[in-house]
Amino acid sequence: MSQESREEAVLDAIGERRELVNDAIDEHLPMAEPKRLYEASRYLLEAGGKRLRPTVTLLVAEALADVEPLSTDYAAFPALDRSGSDGSGDATAAGSDDAGEVDVMASAVSIEVIQSFTLIHDDIMDDDDLRRGVPAVHREYDTETAILAGDTLYSKAFEIMLRTQAASERELQALETLATTCTKICEGQAYDVGFEERGNVDLSEYLGMVELKTAVLYSAASAVPGMLLGADDDTVDALARYGRTVGKAFQIQDDVLDLTVPSEQLGKQRGSDLVEGKRTVITLHARDQGVDVDSLLDADTPEEVTEAEIDEAVGVLEDAGSIQYAEDLAEELVEEGKAELDVLPDNEARQTLRDIADYLIHRGY
Amino acid sequence: MSQESREEAVLDAIGERRELVNDAIDEHLPMAEPKRLYEASRYLLEAGGKRLRPTVTLLVAEALADVEPLSTDYAAFPALDRSGSDGSGDATAAGSDDAGEVDVMASAVSIEVIQSFTLIHDDIMDDDDLRRGVPAVHREYDTETAILAGDTLYSKAFEIMLRTQAASERELQALETLATTCTKICEGQAYDVGFEERGNVDLSEYLGMVELKTAVLYSAASAVPGMLLGADDDTVDALARYGRTVGKAFQIQDDVLDLTVPSEQLGKQRGSDLVEGKRTVITLHARDQGVDVDSLLDADTPEEVTEAEIDEAVGVLEDAGSIQYAEDLAEELVEEGKAELDVLPDNEARQTLRDIADYLIHRGY
Repeated sequence: MSQESREEAVLDAIGERRELVNDAIDEHLPMAEPKRLYEASRYLLEAGGKRLRPTVTLLVAEALADVEPLSTDYAAFPALDRSGSDGSGDATAAGSDDAGEVDVMASAVSIEVIQSFTLIHDDIMDDDDLRRGVPAVHREYDTETAILAGDTLYSKAFEIMLRTQAASERELQALETLATTCTKICEGQAYDVGFEERGNVDLSEYLGMVELKTAVLYSAASAVPGMLLGADDDTVDALARYGRTVGKAFQIQDDVLDLTVPSEQLGKQRGSDLVEGKRTVITLHARDQGVDVDSLLDADTPEEVTEAEIDEAVGVLEDAGSIQYAEDLAEELVEEGKAELDVLPDNEARQTLRDIADYLIHRGY
Repeated sequence: MSQESREEAVLDAIGERRELVNDAIDEHLPMAEPKRLYEASRYLLEAGGKRLRPTVTLLVAEALADVEPLSTDYAAFPALDRSGSDGSGDATAAGSDDAGEVDVMASAVSIEVIQSFTLIHDDIMDDDDLRRGVPAVHREYDTETAILAGDTLYSKAFEIMLRTQAASERELQALETLATTCTKICEGQAYDVGFEERGNVDLSEYLGMVELKTAVLYSAASAVPGMLLGADDDTVDALARYGRTVGKAFQIQDDVLDLTVPSEQLGKQRGSDLVEGKRTVITLHARDQGVDVDSLLDADTPEEVTEAEIDEAVGVLEDAGSIQYAEDLAEELVEEGKAELDVLPDNEARQTLRDIADYLIHRGY
């Protein structure tokens, strides 16, 4: 297939699962009392989002089980040792309960709920006004409600992960992954905030931060279905690495998009990272090339900056080769990630996971 | 024993366990990178606190196992069906792992860590400056760091609860209790914040809020060791009710103390609830008696109010019988809670749990 038709296939795969994921979000996180809290908790989830991470989770389950995409109920997905398609002999590690059918959709929802919690709290910390084209939760409601909405999603994610019906030992492994993943995301965000006040961040520190802040959740999204369905340790590890590398690539591409995609399409002001003095692969590379990154834009807030000023700044970064450098790095990571998928049976779901990796760095927004 | 000597016995019981709990907190939540994040996360835990909830957890374990207080390693506590002292026959529900020894201390630490997370976020939301006699985390550090420190403790609490080594099914039950407890705490805090803007809160709504915001964590503190050690469902339920009722009493007494204990002893400004317009059992009762509660204090911030003004306001509430009413209600709840302990073997740990219930409403701060 050509790159264009592969991108179309990815968008189809995401689109076909998005409604299912949205329905499951509604089911697992229904409106409740107190209303204002649950409205605020559900607000960003209802505002949209591509559901990339849940899609990865569902596709990994399908690839592992070697089933036709969309042929199997995600809420009652056959464990590998039950269907006999894997034969990893892992059954003895399972608890005494029936581990035959696993609600992988619940795990997918849990991870999307964590993603939403981090967005809400990050927007407070970064004082960002817009998210997914709508006001951030602390703008639409207030900071108190936004803190609480994030906190509510946090525990709900654990409640939802507890509903997979997987064998107890596997369930515990997934919960441990969820907990350590959340801790790492907090650490990553702390580094990110800290970097804004430091002049001497280097690229490896930056990439370490990205791994913690962004990549670990992709890693969980792809490894957790492996754990729940009873894949062997090597497979789970490879899946975790797939998520981690493509998650890093995703964040690097996000930094590229922040500079190159029109604000309306981005759902927030273009160039906001630059205005806020965020370190990115791009600015770190440019600085190494002798560009005075901190003087690229004069404005103090994203609202003050003009499109022309951003164009000029982007021009400087392009001339320094910094945008190309970031794109090349993302490409490299994606190739690395795709190779990890060789542990999976050769099937359509696996191909779509490869295509998603490509899509993450070729997407327009 | 007289009330005084019982109170002394309680303080001894708490004091004897506090160092053990503090050591376990250090062990389960060591300093790590990024430093500022972990310093902020540990800040309130290091500032002190009575460790009431962990003490309850440890005493419940001792009472259930019917062992001499402090005779048994809390990190390797014999499960009930292993020691044969209970014979609930619950062993078949356990996972295939060795469920012989349970780290009940880990569960106690987990609950204290959740408590600390809620304090950090609550102080941001309520914009309180002082906590345990030291600046609140968002004052000592900044709001961004405080949000993140709370978020870090949140996931750490789950990580720590995953370390109990209890049988898988029991571990999952404890994790589910932890997750739903956190959700309820968020709901309770949302009601609490919302009540400040409403004139028409009634006592049952207020008590419902207190149950969610405060009592459920006491309930988890007393029920979780029962779950982990394999107590039968009736026992676990009774333990949950003990925690819930004494937790409610604790909060009501907290509201009394906010008015009656000098600021230095309280670790924060006396009368702050009144200044901030918080509904409490006391103000709700007074309003029903025709007291114009909102006009009791003129000051807008706790700093502006004088001791004399607070004394006068307290006098009005005393004359209306509102403080007595709150104290009577707390007493009633404590009696109810103590009666639940009849499910436990008659031993010293059980007596101390009774005494703790009394202490919660007779304590000076």
